[in-house]
Amino acid sequence: MKLNAAEIADMDSRRRAAFVNSLSGFKSANLVGTASSEGQTNLAIMSSTVHLGSHPPLLALVVRPGGDERHTLKNILDTGVYSLNHVNAEIVEQAHQTAARYPAQASEFDATGLTPLWQSGFAAPMVLEASVKLGMQLREHIELKINGTHLVIGEVVLAEVPSLAFRSDGSLDLEAAGSVALSGLDTYHQSAGSKRMAYAKPNMPPRQL
Amino acid sequence: MKLNAAEIADMDSRRRAAFVNSLSGFKSANLVGTASSEGQTNLAIMSSTVHLGSHPPLLALVVRPGGDERHTLKNILDTGVYSLNHVNAEIVEQAHQTAARYPAQASEFDATGLTPLWQSGFAAPMVLEASVKLGMQLREHIELKINGTHLVIGEVVLAEVPSLAFRSDGSLDLEAAGSVALSGLDTYHQSAGSKRMAYAKPNMPPRQL
Repeated sequence: MKLNAAEIADMDSRRRAAFVNSLSGFKSANLVGTASSEGQTNLAIMSSTVHLGSHPPLLALVVRPGGDERHTLKNILDTGVYSLNHVNAEIVEQAHQTAARYPAQASEFDATGLTPLWQSGFAAPMVLEASVKLGMQLREHIELKINGTHLVIGEVVLAEVPSLAFRSDGSLDLEAAGSVALSGLDTYHQSAGSKRMAYAKPNMPPRQL
Repeated sequence: MKLNAAEIADMDSRRRAAFVNSLSGFKSANLVGTASSEGQTNLAIMSSTVHLGSHPPLLALVVRPGGDERHTLKNILDTGVYSLNHVNAEIVEQAHQTAARYPAQASEFDATGLTPLWQSGFAAPMVLEASVKLGMQLREHIELKINGTHLVIGEVVLAEVPSLAFRSDGSLDLEAAGSVALSGLDTYHQSAGSKRMAYAKPNMPPRQL
């Protein structure tokens, strides 16, 4: 099935959102934990975390200006910190529920039953139930002119990962960590079956590790 | 296991790259197809595609200034177009091999045996073997001051998707499409077991579709 730009533009807006959100491929599923300057907590599921670099360790997050993500963005800009917490299979329901449009004064932690975990000296809550938890310090904020979305660039200043998922070469076994992937707007995937490939070299055929 | 900023900075650079590349969670696995103004094709695996918006349909790609990605970036800036092709389980080996540092005058299509597919009027090759193939038009290019990576923002102007994966609500079943996810630098994952959640509402408990 082939669609061109005009056919995509002509789709009903809900169908188009479902379609275009599926096109990038599998996405990360992270709960973004923040607090307002008054200490009101907020938790929002986002699928737009992307790796920018490892030295310094930088991740970018695309945040939409509307809806619940507005509270998250305001909190990040006000406090300069946020947490990223991998969604795992046990908390998919609660994680998805954070996308509901709760009023600003409601905490998605209370609404969903997820537990805020505070680290000393860090002004954003993590999610106790997540197996991979990251403390992020805001480093740069760019509003993208093309569609008004915001690119939030943060440095990983704290990382809590399950020891059993931490491989000797530094990588994490995300299947062992129980992390799930997202596709489209609403589908959560567990990995079953993975293949690790050796470092690719021009004069060597591809080979599994 | 907990690491702070200093402990991450102190890791050996290869371990740190493996670690930090694992932190964002699961990533998309896309082959980026380009051609130089002289028609020399290039194919590079990238895991940094992120959804920016659906109207217009925009995806961003983080491209590193060094290594093979340099050729891809130059081709995108020279021609204004590129293709994104989902890696599926059948082509993991070839897809991973495109990361090897071939010289600029070598095509990763020839080196890996993947087949370039040209669309009329579109100056970048797609990958015949990929089940989801996107034609992208460059819309904005931002060099991120913080670490010199480039954000390439493109509009989806062509989309070829398998009919069997196209659901009536517009979303794609990426498991049916055979797409794989990436974690870290080298691990390819197949999905087995997915859960679709209904649109979240504040006054309704989370429920599966």
